[in-house]
Amino acid sequence: VESRNVEGFLKAAEELHYADLAAVFENLDDEERSFFTAHISIDRFPEILAELPDTLIEETLERFDAKAQQDILGQLLDDDRADILQDVSAEARQRYLALLQPEDMEATRSLMRYDEDTAGGRMTTQVARITSDMTVKQVLEVLRDDINSTESLARIYVVDDQGHLMGKVRLRHLTFSPWDTPITEIMQEVDITILATADQEEAAQMFSKYDMTVLPVVDEFNHLLGIITHDDVLEILEEESTEDIEKMSGIAGETSEETYLNTSIGTHFKRRFPWLFVLAVLAISSGYVMLRFEHVLSSIFLLALYLPMVVAAGGNTGGQAATMVIRAMSLGELEPGSTFKVILKELSLGLLLGLIMGASIAAITIFILPAFNPQLPEGISYTIFALAVSVSLAVQIAVSTLSGALLPIGARAIKLDPAVVAAPAITTLVDIFGMVIYFTAARTILGL
Amino acid sequence: VESRNVEGFLKAAEELHYADLAAVFENLDDEERSFFTAHISIDRFPEILAELPDTLIEETLERFDAKAQQDILGQLLDDDRADILQDVSAEARQRYLALLQPEDMEATRSLMRYDEDTAGGRMTTQVARITSDMTVKQVLEVLRDDINSTESLARIYVVDDQGHLMGKVRLRHLTFSPWDTPITEIMQEVDITILATADQEEAAQMFSKYDMTVLPVVDEFNHLLGIITHDDVLEILEEESTEDIEKMSGIAGETSEETYLNTSIGTHFKRRFPWLFVLAVLAISSGYVMLRFEHVLSSIFLLALYLPMVVAAGGNTGGQAATMVIRAMSLGELEPGSTFKVILKELSLGLLLGLIMGASIAAITIFILPAFNPQLPEGISYTIFALAVSVSLAVQIAVSTLSGALLPIGARAIKLDPAVVAAPAITTLVDIFGMVIYFTAARTILGL
Repeated sequence: VESRNVEGFLKAAEELHYADLAAVFENLDDEERSFFTAHISIDRFPEILAELPDTLIEETLERFDAKAQQDILGQLLDDDRADILQDVSAEARQRYLALLQPEDMEATRSLMRYDEDTAGGRMTTQVARITSDMTVKQVLEVLRDDINSTESLARIYVVDDQGHLMGKVRLRHLTFSPWDTPITEIMQEVDITILATADQEEAAQMFSKYDMTVLPVVDEFNHLLGIITHDDVLEILEEESTEDIEKMSGIAGETSEETYLNTSIGTHFKRRFPWLFVLAVLAISSGYVMLRFEHVLSSIFLLALYLPMVVAAGGNTGGQAATMVIRAMSLGELEPGSTFKVILKELSLGLLLGLIMGASIAAITIFILPAFNPQLPEGISYTIFALAVSVSLAVQIAVSTLSGALLPIGARAIKLDPAVVAAPAITTLVDIFGMVIYFTAARTILGL
Repeated sequence: VESRNVEGFLKAAEELHYADLAAVFENLDDEERSFFTAHISIDRFPEILAELPDTLIEETLERFDAKAQQDILGQLLDDDRADILQDVSAEARQRYLALLQPEDMEATRSLMRYDEDTAGGRMTTQVARITSDMTVKQVLEVLRDDINSTESLARIYVVDDQGHLMGKVRLRHLTFSPWDTPITEIMQEVDITILATADQEEAAQMFSKYDMTVLPVVDEFNHLLGIITHDDVLEILEEESTEDIEKMSGIAGETSEETYLNTSIGTHFKRRFPWLFVLAVLAISSGYVMLRFEHVLSSIFLLALYLPMVVAAGGNTGGQAATMVIRAMSLGELEPGSTFKVILKELSLGLLLGLIMGASIAAITIFILPAFNPQLPEGISYTIFALAVSVSLAVQIAVSTLSGALLPIGARAIKLDPAVVAAPAITTLVDIFGMVIYFTAARTILGL
């Protein structure tokens, strides 16, 4: 594009996959994008548009005149079209909708009724529908027209005259059955469907649990509304994993569809600042605990040597426990009824980890520390000092492990996303516990 | 199962999906499992077995006699069979291989040559192959026998007589073309293939980038070896995300195929202890820094109020930066060449976050702290104290953000998995920096 070598560029573009073309387009500057839209065949834009990040869509469509916009929007798959129209300004949405054919407009409007992150918001309504009174020959005649317009012919659905889902037929059974076979003979039962209002994550979990290719979406009366296909599910899984991972690191806001490098500094800042600020203010509580225990630390300043370790061990074990529990929840492994089992498991683990870590640190303190000849006040032996450190470490680890497991469960119980209470929030919280535990144990065991 | 209500149980089991049956089986005790294997139809076990976690497979197969083992292994899809044989003991593997039909044995052996986490290890060799000199009628005759044995008829591949991949044909085009159409007329080009030795993550990335249903796997001479289907990709994505998330929380070892609740305390312990121990020992360095700066802290103990905040803010910003970079890497967004852009972005962000956080904390210190009437030594005003705290906070945030971004990039450069240097490792490291930065700033600015 840069060298304005029109022919070379167009030739290369012709051979590129639309996903690659979209990536190229995203990385161009304004002038280069104008060149791109002016020279690439308009037939390729529906697919390119569907791959672009939300924020680029309206800008890109506005590079075309109304006639071209009509062509592009008309050629889009209806689920992609609904997604795109949900991402543009209200004014543009009205204008684009008015350009559509009446049946496309209706289908798009009905898809837009569902939230983007529900099964209904993800589905396509372009699905092959037949009735059970047909023969194989009749079905093939009906489907012949759909050969290019139906996103998936891998499953063909049988509906009654009110649109209720009756069963499914596989293309291979149509292909290999005599033409006069009644559909009822090769029709199979549909075991698994999803409600249009269900969360997209549920759809993804069903796909991966049941190894599905196509998942039919129905309303509460079992009317077939559309299907979710495997490429929708890949997108859902990627979105949900990224969202979980980001939330678990204290990054706020919607997962961006733009790549890391194309996201502006401002957007990065807006997503990172809020938790950072809240956690910093909370962390002052840890400092306050330290201030209150000034006399303990002043009497044996050597306690400072282990303070960061005890505090940090809590953050690490709490974070591990939270991660295990949050991941198990998002894979659908933890029913709300299993809370007690989780508590039992993490409490045992916390005690086990605490005991072994405590014993290791005690051994290091007793056998290695004296070699550095540090200052301990009269009457306090290395053994009793090691005991104080180890006991507080063990208690801190046990408390943190349990907190790490309980916080996400508690968050879910009050309908918060478990991922937001992960590592950073837990670390900040158990830092405060850690200070209290450490200084209290030191004061009690060392008699300060 | 528990009530030994054989008929009721068998009836319920008949209607259950194999994935649900596998989940039921996993949660049974030994005696109940014997009952299960004795009563459930043997035809259902191939699919159930493929869904069970690795550790249960051999135990479950050994509940059957050799004849039944032969039936079950023979009915398995060949990619599932190879996976299963890779998960049993060497002795059992030889015994099971000997039970197979010669052609199954050969296919299984050739699949087992590839690592489980490569494209070759994931593929199935059961794919429809035809040659380009056939007509639609001939192809349909050949495929009729494959109707149940081929994992996916959605794509049918055209190969030459040496097995080189020539093109693909869609079932729908076979179905809707006249019988005498030559295959060359409806054959389409295959743009995208993957090498059998490529990492499974690469296969998953290609699937989601190019919206594929089936990805052909080839060797370096473009011989068609097999295909990867969408259900393989869902498994890969789930595995890889779980692995990333766990590594990012300092959890070591292979991602378990067993559910959280079914994983033993011992296994949980083994996966959590190593990092915990290493990080605890490293955290003693932070304590050592604190010991060395005893005089600074003793002169103005009020510094303790902000110490945990400055240290923790580094962990939080470092963790956020690392998460963004690691996720961008695993989505394939960051080429090795873009390191400089990442540095520039994170440095700007670190400075911006540091300045704004520093200014906020300075404001809190100057306007709110005096109300609590804390002890500051003669000659040190709230303003200069606030300056010391803010400067160290800003520097700590800038340094941590940059470290958080650079560590994963560095890890990748030396062929380590970037995810292992995430949050816990970075937190421990920037804790040490934080102590040094805080006390150095305090000493310099407050003249201690």
